This record gives sequence, structure tokens and C-alpha cells, in this order.
Amino acid sequence: MKPFGILAVLLFGLAAATTWAAQKPRARDLGVPFDGTPGPLNAITDVKGVEVGHTTLISGSGKLVVGKGPVRTGVTAVFPRGRDSLDPVFGGWFSLNGNGEMTGTTWLEESGVLDGPVMITNTHSVGVVRDAVIAWRIRKAPPDDEGYSWSLPIVAETADDGLNDMNGFHVKPEHVYHALDSAHGGAVEEGNVGGGTGMVCNEFKGGIGTSSRVLPEKLGGYTVGVLVQCNYGRRSQLRIAGVPVGREIPDKTVRDEDIGSIIIVVATDAPLIPTQLKRLARRAALGLGRDGSFAGDGSGDIFIAFSTANPGAIASKGVRDMKMLPNQQLNPVFLATVQATEEAIVNAMVAAETMKGANDLEVIALPHDRLREVLKKYNRLVE
Amino acid sequence: MKPFGILAVLLFGLAAATTWAAQKPRARDLGVPFDGTPGPLNAITDVKGVEVGHTTLISGSGKLVVGKGPVRTGVTAVFPRGRDSLDPVFGGWFSLNGNGEMTGTTWLEESGVLDGPVMITNTHSVGVVRDAVIAWRIRKAPPDDEGYSWSLPIVAETADDGLNDMNGFHVKPEHVYHALDSAHGGAVEEGNVGGGTGMVCNEFKGGIGTSSRVLPEKLGGYTVGVLVQCNYGRRSQLRIAGVPVGREIPDKTVRDEDIGSIIIVVATDAPLIPTQLKRLARRAALGLGRDGSFAGDGSGDIFIAFSTANPGAIASKGVRDMKMLPNQQLNPVFLATVQATEEAIVNAMVAAETMKGANDLEVIALPHDRLREVLKKYNRLVE
Amino acid sequence: MKPFGILAVLLFGLAAATTWAAQKPRARDLGVPFDGTPGPLNAITDVKGVEVGHTTLISGSGKLVVGKGPVRTGVTAVFPRGRDSLDPVFGGWFSLNGNGEMTGTTWLEESGVLDGPVMITNTHSVGVVRDAVIAWRIRKAPPDDEGYSWSLPIVAETADDGLNDMNGFHVKPEHVYHALDSAHGGAVEEGNVGGGTGMVCNEFKGGIGTSSRVLPEKLGGYTVGVLVQCNYGRRSQLRIAGVPVGREIPDKTVRDEDIGSIIIVVATDAPLIPTQLKRLARRAALGLGRDGSFAGDGSGDIFIAFSTANPGAIASKGVRDMKMLPNQQLNPVFLATVQATEEAIVNAMVAAETMKGANDLEVIALPHDRLREVLKKYNRLVE
Amino acid sequence: MKPFGILAVLLFGLAAATTWAAQKPRARDLGVPFDGTPGPLNAITDVKGVEVGHTTLISGSGKLVVGKGPVRTGVTAVFPRGRDSLDPVFGGWFSLNGNGEMTGTTWLEESGVLDGPVMITNTHSVGVVRDAVIAWRIRKAPPDDEGYSWSLPIVAETADDGLNDMNGFHVKPEHVYHALDSAHGGAVEEGNVGGGTGMVCNEFKGGIGTSSRVLPEKLGGYTVGVLVQCNYGRRSQLRIAGVPVGREIPDKTVRDEDIGSIIIVVATDAPLIPTQLKRLARRAALGLGRDGSFAGDGSGDIFIAFSTANPGAIASKGVRDMKMLPNQQLNPVFLATVQATEEAIVNAMVAAETMKGANDLEVIALPHDRLREVLKKYNRLVE
Repeated sequence: MKPFGILAVLLFGLAAATTWAAQKPRARDLGVPFDGTPGPLNAITDVKGVEVGHTTLISGSGKLVVGKGPVRTGVTAVFPRGRDSLDPVFGGWFSLNGNGEMTGTTWLEESGVLDGPVMITNTHSVGVVRDAVIAWRIRKAPPDDEGYSWSLPIVAETADDGLNDMNGFHVKPEHVYHALDSAHGGAVEEGNVGGGTGMVCNEFKGGIGTSSRVLPEKLGGYTVGVLVQCNYGRRSQLRIAGVPVGREIPDKTVRDEDIGSIIIVVATDAPLIPTQLKRLARRAALGLGRDGSFAGDGSGDIFIAFSTANPGAIASKGVRDMKMLPNQQLNPVFLATVQATEEAIVNAMVAAETMKGANDLEVIALPHDRLREVLKKYNRLVE
Repeated sequence: MKPFGILAVLLFGLAAATTWAAQKPRARDLGVPFDGTPGPLNAITDVKGVEVGHTTLISGSGKLVVGKGPVRTGVTAVFPRGRDSLDPVFGGWFSLNGNGEMTGTTWLEESGVLDGPVMITNTHSVGVVRDAVIAWRIRKAPPDDEGYSWSLPIVAETADDGLNDMNGFHVKPEHVYHALDSAHGGAVEEGNVGGGTGMVCNEFKGGIGTSSRVLPEKLGGYTVGVLVQCNYGRRSQLRIAGVPVGREIPDKTVRDEDIGSIIIVVATDAPLIPTQLKRLARRAALGLGRDGSFAGDGSGDIFIAFSTANPGAIASKGVRDMKMLPNQQLNPVFLATVQATEEAIVNAMVAAETMKGANDLEVIALPHDRLREVLKKYNRLVE
Repeated sequence: MKPFGILAVLLFGLAAATTWAAQKPRARDLGVPFDGTPGPLNAITDVKGVEVGHTTLISGSGKLVVGKGPVRTGVTAVFPRGRDSLDPVFGGWFSLNGNGEMTGTTWLEESGVLDGPVMITNTHSVGVVRDAVIAWRIRKAPPDDEGYSWSLPIVAETADDGLNDMNGFHVKPEHVYHALDSAHGGAVEEGNVGGGTGMVCNEFKGGIGTSSRVLPEKLGGYTVGVLVQCNYGRRSQLRIAGVPVGREIPDKTVRDEDIGSIIIVVATDAPLIPTQLKRLARRAALGLGRDGSFAGDGSGDIFIAFSTANPGAIASKGVRDMKMLPNQQLNPVFLATVQATEEAIVNAMVAAETMKGANDLEVIALPHDRLREVLKKYNRLVE
Repeated sequence: MKPFGILAVLLFGLAAATTWAAQKPRARDLGVPFDGTPGPLNAITDVKGVEVGHTTLISGSGKLVVGKGPVRTGVTAVFPRGRDSLDPVFGGWFSLNGNGEMTGTTWLEESGVLDGPVMITNTHSVGVVRDAVIAWRIRKAPPDDEGYSWSLPIVAETADDGLNDMNGFHVKPEHVYHALDSAHGGAVEEGNVGGGTGMVCNEFKGGIGTSSRVLPEKLGGYTVGVLVQCNYGRRSQLRIAGVPVGREIPDKTVRDEDIGSIIIVVATDAPLIPTQLKRLARRAALGLGRDGSFAGDGSGDIFIAFSTANPGAIASKGVRDMKMLPNQQLNPVFLATVQATEEAIVNAMVAAETMKGANDLEVIALPHDRLREVLKKYNRLVE
């Protein structure tokens, strides 16, 4: 086995590349039909202020030796207000099937407040990522007026133990710092990057995917952005745009059981309070349902939503003024969440490339041409 | 307006007719493709012991006069172990969007036990149904060993205020007793019956629908049955078997907003404990998602699941012996729940017939021929 | 049995009497030590806008004949903004032990909004009260801008089946209307009134109790008010001001098991959002804990909290401006909730008078002189 | 500053001493009155199979230098079936106030199953403890039949940033392994040990405390054991046995705000299913309430309960036979939980000794003689 540090370092830098998105087709480019109007980037970063950073670790090949590799993993950071802001946001979460971890949710549920980034990594690296986020915050700035830094970070995971030496604990604090420090607006890298590096989705190669929707001005003009780390599903269940794509492309399946997971992050600039953001998080389940999931027992299907509205409103002094969109006006925001989730998952599969990992396991990419053929067969191809 | 009592009485008796099912096509008969293997009746009553009773109230026509009619409403009763059993079952529930009522859920959540039938009616008749269930139980038998009768009944609702004089409070205790007393196994009436009489689903006529799945013996041979009272959705969102049926049949829509609701009852004979039944209830959301719902703000999307296994196990004396299916074996049960929910909703629309109600509002049935044409257009018609 | 209508009518009128409070000692008057500063009325009505109405039904005596009596029951209505307001409030709830009913909580949990009064009655009259609240609202005013009236009322209960013919369903719609129509600010009737008429608390006579706390100006000057319908507890566990009063006064106990319940309503004018009101509701458990409860299996210990701040903010049009007190400033509000709950329960027992009910069951009042003796024995009497 | 490694190593070994308990008085020894009958050890280890291990890290003194110390922290491990068992247990949890972390609860809530130990440490070491538990499990034994090891460990925390250099991240994987490897039955070390080393409780020195109750045979003969890591509360609120001890001993308080937390672990051998264990966890709140807590905004009051009954029942193959105690028989178990929690907290304060930590902050022990005087003043001293 070759020393894997070299490739890892190479890939490290790549994560910040912003010219990336133009080079690869996305689901819409292939003619997959989706409803609603995406934002300019069709990404979570269409929500102003949101920044995403990845650290991608790929090294080694062949037989798995615990602690040695092969390594196919990483870390993804999503900052609601950008990496330089210490201003918290309102948030809410939902667990469709909780065979997974998202630290920090007990306080999120209690307070309705999300203080810091949302981190996503592999199952066995949640701890190192969590403590590293705290250490990064301590170094970054003094505690807030109340004497607090971030102590209860949000860290979620899905398992990459098929392709990756997950028991080797290859994510280190410096990888976490890199994901945090390299977070940026603009186009978001998709596929085999960040926390999504070694993930498998509907028995195709999965990973990170994103999408967005922009509402008409008369409905408020709000943006909803979604980012997924996609690792769920059995091939036979996969539907894309309602078409039974999974059954039509039964090649090279890799699982007996639905043992994967999906983390879904929903961002919006609509002025929503925590109760409403829990509602948004729950809608992600319906987008996932459209793509065919039945949320298997082994799945950690955990969703989080936040609003970038009301900057400065969640302070500790005095009574705060804030804005709220009434419940009766949430339908367009709900529908946008379902639609962007449906599309972000497909984007993850479209972007991910065939990967060979631990013990030479190969997980194939969703073949773009075959996808187009199937959509055409069912009269759903957009040409 | 004609005296509405006469027609109501006529329809009263009809509810118990068991020859009904053979006379009308169901979704499968029309060529709609569904996954999985249904039970002999393709109904919730395929779960042994489950009995369903309806009272259907239809009378009057023309302009709505509060308290006079027109009346298009009713009551549906679902008994887990049949109407003569006082033996409780384990249960669990989930609210996907709680703009609705399901009484009794606080105790269900606390105890994991469902004691009595699940009742479904219109929004403004929940109270009368609740108290009437208590009265019926008191008359039926003495309290249990602990001195308890049923005091916290499960009563759910959706709103039929479009077609029905809902503010006229036309459901009376005797209508509740009739639904309870007429509950039976065998084929289940669908469409404009019982609590579903005046309901609207995706802007087609909705109502009661049901479906079931039977697992292969090697997966336990369990049955999962679903019954829905279907009143949700906007036409433009409706998908059937993944096909955008709603957009293809845009005729005669009746709503500006998603203000409807859906109650979903999931029954199984798999030996599940309450924690697991909550998981089942949550899967109903994924079946609903397949049919296109985004769970609008005005929607009361509330789901309940119970297991008829472990008869006699929930007694008050001594330590009880019981059976449990381990979590790791739940995937087939989960998938069956998603599939049966997806189909039950379509069955409701297929069975319901065009209805004219209050103020001559007409809600059209899903046109069977058009449905077949659309499925064919998208290469999804089973012929 | 005497016709019970006469006494019922008499008591009907009494409920609105506002000179009542001056005539009976409350817990503080007896020398029970409590922490914190109560408002001028030491009642939930110290929160501006809150109005309380009772209907008290007492008639008949001797042997219980179902449907005939004796009757010892009633209805209590708590309006957040007064009975003439249709402006909703933010709210939240918590079930410490859910062997009880509080209708409307599914929507309260989903929306964070409480629309209408909080009603409390006996277990078997929840349905009639619920539907009557809807009917009252329909008569009162046209639907709101969105076309809605109240359809999902909050109705809670505790069981008075010891003293009352609960299976006789003696609460009728007109009793509900009376409680609603007679709601008023000012002093709140306590003890054997309204929904609390036939209740038993720690095996003393229980019923309605109330208390309040006012915060110093530097902590915001907010008021927290609590009203309880108190029907819980075993004598042996009762603590008052930390003193084992229950063991010291073991006379005439009436229960083998903890089968009672308690409903706790918390009101405040602090500008809290729904997430925060759920936190307030949870604090009621700690006040109840101070009085010795262990929340028995049979207990329906269900708590609701609302904020009268932000009038007009929960409308359906446009984006709303509102105020919020940051989480970091909630400690005084939390402590006030615990203290007011602790005191409201004792006030209920102090106000309630010995009652003889069905089958001549007699439940004694907490003897005031004995209470003082016990407090003195433990050096806790305030003289 | 002296090298702190030396003292740390010394204390490392001490944690396993089993002769410890005999040497220090506990709350009962001082004459504090408690209800109910404790087990032989009056400890969580009275529940057969439960084992507890501590790693205690104390080193350095004087001015805090981040990363250098002083160090006053540690790790505590609680194994439901002993450290050599890989057999999971049923469990449930409750967050009274979620300003804290307990990882693994999303899966606990979903599955009802607790797989591995419950770990407790300081707030900023949750991550390292989590990943180390996974690593320890991987080394210990091969994956289970389904291919799983422990991937979602339960790790809880309270903050010791007053006395400890919490931002120095002094807990290392080897400290976690030591707590796991040294877990034992028998007497449990209390006070300044393990995760509780640097904790503060009601502004006295806090830490680890434990207690138990044994039910009479006619009530099933079950044992309930509680272990707390006690770091909550403001002095003025402290009640012991109902007596306002906090106000009577106002010396040397150290906090302006309620910013502490408490983790409560409840163990029982009663055959309870997950739904019932959630109920048990909720009762811990009432025990905490008896000691005067109002659950301040800054408090992470998170409770977990498990049952050691049904060994071998939570396997992945076939249908399992299990036992369940009906809900109607839970009252004695509930009461035992409240009582043991109330006592475990007082035991923590009685055992903890005055500690000087970071920046020479000194937190005094609850003075035993003063406690006795105050109890005597209020006629509550057991002599």
C-alpha cells in the first residue's frame, strides 16, 4: 500500500476549488425533470450567507488494514452565516429514522438556536469532529458576552465502512479545521467530497448533493437551499422523477439490506421561528419519499433546518425585535423544501463517480446515459 | 330542502353490506402498478381480527343552512381485535403535520397501549364521537379488573366543510353506536362512506381507502393493512405510481390552498412493541410522499399504528410474557407499510364517486379512463 | 333523589362572584411559607387580559344512579386575552404523565399557537365541551380572514368519578357556554368550583387553585400566573413547604393507588416564543415535585403555557414584527413558574371544602388548624 | 506549575478501590431522612450486573493556562450488564432542560435499545470519549451477527470549567479505556471522582452520587438504582429533605446564575419495555425537584433509564420472548426512582470534599455539621 498522506494532501486543497461546478453535468443537465425554480447556483449557497467547506481524504487501495486504510472519507462544514460570523440562527430538526448521530440536537430542541456550523462526517469520526469544532471556536474569538463559546456543536454522520477504513479513525483535528477554514459561498462541490467521500446511495456511488428553490416575489421571494450527505437506500426502491430507475438499472448492486443513511440540511432566508423550522425539517422526509426511500431500520435519516433571517436577534441582552412569517404562508416554503430535497439527492448521485475502495469494493456511479434512456422510456426525459 | 333523515337512514344500513367490494374496480383493476403482494382482500381487514364499521350520512341538497344541511358526513370505526374484544393492543402514532385532532394520543404515547377502537369523523364532530365511545363501552361491559372502562378514546378527523354542513353538528351519538355495532371483518367499503363521506383528495373526490401487504413466510409471513381517510392535497402535486397524474388531469379543481388532511391507520399482526409501532406510523409519511403530498400547513396528517399480536399480554396482573420482532427484522414491515399506504390513498380516489354537496359544490371523481390514459402515456399502465 | 337542577342553577350564578376571595383564607393567610413575590390577586388573572369562568354543577346526594347523579362536576374556561378577543397567543405544552386528555395539543405542538380558551372539565365530558366551544365560536363572530373559526379547541380533564356520577354525562353545552360567557378578570374562585368541583388532591378535597409571581423591574417586571385543576396524589407523599404534611395528617384517606391527575395552566406576559413556552410548561413539573408528587401511572399530569405578549402578531398576512425574551434571561421566569405552581396546588387544597358525593363518599378538606400545627412542628409556620 | 501527570497517575489507580465506601459518611449516616428502603450498597450497583468505573484526573494548581491545567476532571462509565457483556438492554431517556449533550439518544429514542455503557465526562471531552468507546469495543470483540459493533455510544457531560482547564482537553483515549476497564460491581466511589471530579452542586462541591431502593417482594422485589453527576443549582434554592438548607448555609457561594447541569442514570431489574423506561427517566425530574432545582436555562438536565431484565432478548434473529411488567404496576418503581434520585444528589454533595482548582477558585464541601444543625432546627434530623 502506498503512503496515503500524499493523495490526501492533494485532495485537501481541491475542496476549495470554485471552478468545479461548471465542469460536470448535474441532474437537470441530463434532462431529469424537477418542479419549481432553482436559484442561480441551484445550491444551498443560494441562501445568502451560507458557506460550505469540505475536507476530502482519499488514499491507499486494496485490502483493508485497520488504521492503515484504504481511506475514503472526509468532513463537510455548513455555516449558516459564514465562517466569520458568531451570530447564531434559529433552527429545528427531525429524525425520520434515528439509526444515526447528530450531536447537539438536545440543545437545539430546547433552545431553538443553532450556534455554529453543521458538520457532517463518517460515523466513527463524530467525536473528533465535535471536539475540534470547540477547539476551533476557542481559538477564533473570545467567549460571548455571557461567557460562552460553542460547547454543543452539531455533528452528523453516515457510515462509509464499505469503501473506507472507518475503524481506522483517519479524520484528525486538522482535517476539521481545514473544512471550517475553507468554507466559502458560491458553487458547492458535489459527489465524492467532504463527509460524502465514501458514501453509497441506492447502491450507486453517493455523497454530497445540493439544490435550491427561489419563490416568486408575491410569495415572499424567499430562497430554500438543501444539502445532503447521501448514503441511503436499496437499488430496487430508487425512483427518480417518479420513474422506477432502480429496477431499470439493476447492475452491480452492493447491499443485501437498507443499511445506509442520509443527512439533510435545509437552509432558508425566510423569517421562521424554531417551531416552524422543525416543520421544514420534517418536509425533507417527503422529498426523500419521492425518491423511493422506505427509511430502513439501519438508516440514520436525520434532518436539520435553519433560517438566516433575524441577524442579531438571538442575543442575550434585553428584549429582541424579530420578524416571523405566519404559519399560513408556509406552503410555498414547504413545497420548495420537498422539491429541493428531491433534487439534491439526485444531484449527489449524478455528481459522484465510480469509486474503488477497501478490499477493492467498487461502487459504480449512476450511469448518465442509462438514466436518460430510462427517463425516455417513461416519457419523462426533458430534451 | 327535503327532510334529510330519510336518506340518512337508508345509507345507514348500506354500510354493513359486504358484497360491495366486488362491484367496483379498485386501483389495481384499472392497471395502476404497485409493488408488493396484497392480502386476499387488499384491505386492513386482512390483518386477522380487524373490523371496520361505517355510518354514512347523506341528505339534503342546495344552499347550506347551518343546522339544516346539506349533510355529507359520517363516522368510521376500526377495531383492532374486533368489536367484542376488550383486550387492548400495543400502538404508536406520528403527526407529520398536526393541523388536526386525534384525541387519546397523549395516553397512547405514554402507555404504548391502544384501548378501544380508532374512530374517524369530521372535525366538528370529534367531541360527540369521543363521548359516545365512552358511553358505548360503559353499556357494553363492566369495568376491567382495575376498575377502568375506556376513558380516553382515539378519535381523529378531517374537515368536510366544503361539501357538508360541518357547523351543523349532524353526527349524533346513535350514528357513533351504529358505526361501532356494525363493524365487521371482510371487505371494507371505500370512497364516500363513513368518516370519508364528504372528503376531497387532491381536488378529486376522496374518502375511505384501504390496502394490505403480506410478507413471504421467510420474512415472517406477517400482514400489514392500512386504512386512510383521505382529504388532503392540491391537484398539481398528485402523483400516482410516480406519474404526474394531477398535472395531466387539471380539470375542475376546487382549492386554492392545501387545506385538507389525511388520517392513516396502520394495522399489523407482527409482534411489535410500542416503540416499533411509532416507527411504523412514521413510514406512512413516505407512502404519502410517493403520492406527491408536501403536507401543507392546513393539513392534519396524523397516523396511528397498532399490532394485534400478543393477545392478553397487556393485562394488569403479574409479569406478562410477550413476543417481539427484533428491530433488525423490520425492513419488510416498513416497506409493506409504505406500499400499502401509497395504494390505499389511490384506492380511496378510485372508489369515491362524484359528489354534489353544500351550495351545489361538485367535486369530481378521479376519472378512471383518464387515469388509464395518463398511465399509458408514461408507460406505466399494467395491461 | 331530589331534582338536582335547582342547586345547579344556584351555583351557576355564584361562579361569577368577585367578592369571594376576600372571604376565605388562602395558604399564605394560614402561614404557609412560599418564595417569591405574588401579584396583587395572587392569581392567574394577574397576567393582564387573562379571564377565568366557571360553571359549577352540584346536585343530588346518596346512592349513585348512572344518569341521575349525584352530580359534583363542572367546567372551567381560561381565556388568554379575555373572552372577547379572537387574537391567538403563542403556547406550548408538556405531558409529565399522559394518563389523561388535552385535546388540541397536536396543533399546538405543530403551530406553537393557541387559538381560543383553555377548557378544563371531567374526563367523560371532554367531548361535549370541545364541540360546544366550536359552536360558541361560530355564533360569536364570523371566521377569520383565512376562513377559519376555532376547530381544534384545547380541552383538558381530570376524573371526578369518586364524588360525581361521571358516567352520567351531566355537563351539557349550555354549561360550557356559561363558563365561557361568565369569564372575568379579577379574583379567581378556588376550591370546589368549575372543572374542579368534584376533585380530590392528595386524598384531601381538591379542585381549582391559582397563584402568581411578579418579577422585579430589573428582571423585566413580568408576571407569571398559574391555575391548576388538582386531583392527584397519595396522602403519604404530600409535602407542603417541604414539610411532610401528608404523613402528619393521615386521617380519612380515600385511595389505594395514585389514580388522580393534575392540569396546570401557566400564563405570562413575558414575550416568549413557542419553544420557550414548552420550557415553561415543563417547569410546572418541578413545582408539582416540590409538593411531593411522583406522577403515578394513573395520573394525567398535563401542562400548558401561553404568553399574552405580541398581540396581533400571529396574523395570516405579511411578515410579522414581534418581541422575544432571549433564553439567557428566562431563569427568573422559570423560577416564578415553579414557585407559583407549588403555591397554586396548596391554594386549591386550602380553598376546597369537605364534600360528600356519590354513594355518600366524603372527602375531607385539608384541616387549616392541623396544617398550621404541622408547619409549626417543623419550624416552618409564618406567624 | 508542577507536572500534573504524576498526581493524575496516582489518582488513576485509586478509582478502583472498593474499600472506599466504608470510610466516609453518607447522607443517611449524617441523619438526613429519606423515604423507602435502599439496597445493601445504597448504590446503582445494587441492580445486579451494573458496573461502574471512574478515571479521575487531578493535577496542577494556581492560574489557569489553557492546555496546561489545573486539571480537575475525569470519566465515568456505567455498564448495564457489566463490562464483559455485549448484550444490549432496553432503555429510554428524557431531557428536562437540554442545555447539554448526551450523544446516542437519537438511536436510543428510535430503537429503545441501549448498546454499550453510559459514559459521563466534561462538556469538551464528549467527542474523545465517544470515539474511544467505539475503539475499545472494536478491540474487545468481533462485530455482532449483523456485522455491527457499537457505533452510536451514549456519552453525557456536565461542565467543569470553573475548577478545571476544560478548554485544555485533558481527557485522552487512555483515560476512557481505564474507566471502561476498571468498571466493577460493589460499592461506588462518590464525590470528586470520575466525570464528577470538578463539578459544583448548589454552589457546594458536587460530583458523583448514588442511591438505590428495593421494593417489597409483594410489589415484585425489584431494585432501582440511580447514579448522578451533579453540577446544577443555585445555593438559595437547595432543599434537603424539604428543609431550606441552602438559605441556612449561605456561605461562600460561587455563582450568579444557574449554569450547572445534572446527568441522572436510572437502572432497574424490573422487566420494562422502552416506553416504560422513558417514563422512569421522566421521574428523575421529580426527585430533582424535591431537592429544589428549577432547571435553569443553562442546565443540561438529561436523564437515562435502562432495564437489565430480558437478557438475550434483543437479538437479531427470530422472534424473541420477553417479559413485561404492566403499566398498572409501575407506581412502586416510579416512587423508588424519585426517592433514589433525591438521595443520590444529596449523597454526591455529602461525599464531595472542598476543592481548590483553576485560578485558585475554592468550592467548599457541604459542611456535615452545619447540615445536621439545620436539619435539627427544622425537626428533621434522624438521630
